[in-house]
Amino acid sequence: MRRFGQLIGVDPALLETYKSYHAAVWPEVLEMIKACNISNYSIYYKNNMLFAYMEYTGDDFAADMAKMAADPKTQEWWAIMEPMQRPVSSRAAGEWWANMEEVFHLE
Amino acid sequence: MRRFGQLIGVDPALLETYKSYHAAVWPEVLEMIKACNISNYSIYYKNNMLFAYMEYTGDDFAADMAKMAADPKTQEWWAIMEPMQRPVSSRAAGEWWANMEEVFHLE
Repeated sequence: MRRFGQLIGVDPALLETYKSYHAAVWPEVLEMIKACNISNYSIYYKNNMLFAYMEYTGDDFAADMAKMAADPKTQEWWAIMEPMQRPVSSRAAGEWWANMEEVFHLE
Repeated sequence: MRRFGQLIGVDPALLETYKSYHAAVWPEVLEMIKACNISNYSIYYKNNMLFAYMEYTGDDFAADMAKMAADPKTQEWWAIMEPMQRPVSSRAAGEWWANMEEVFHLE
């Protein structure tokens, strides 16, 4: 299993909208996340920042992410979410949510 | 089970020191964390920020946190960590790490 921590900003003026969407994520989007072997997935908010924690239980992460990105309903969801988000400038090339560095883990 | 996401800043000049300590956390500190019913505990770094994710499986969180805070070795550890950390000004009264708001969870 691989764990991921990811960081992105959120437009303060759109935070409540962002939260409303995430209180009722479209079922097709949730099903696609599960189909791509992501579980125990949480998003937290504080200080105009969003932090995501998730666990990946598949064996080909790149292929699963490509599958998710190719899903039309997921694309539709992202097209609504992305204008509310403010990616951090220090993210790596090709990233939207910035992958964070794990500095500690205890089982 | 309760999940927590927490946010704190880190002094950029002390990041490598902070990481070194967390690559080899004192065994007594790790044992106390487990004894206080915290598991699946990760800390991530990005953009001068630290994000912690943890799961609590006990039935009296306040009592367990008081137990941890009363442990001399944990106090000694915190006394080294705290000067490297930069608490966010929007944290709640009494907080050091700021509790974040869960806006999404998928099992």
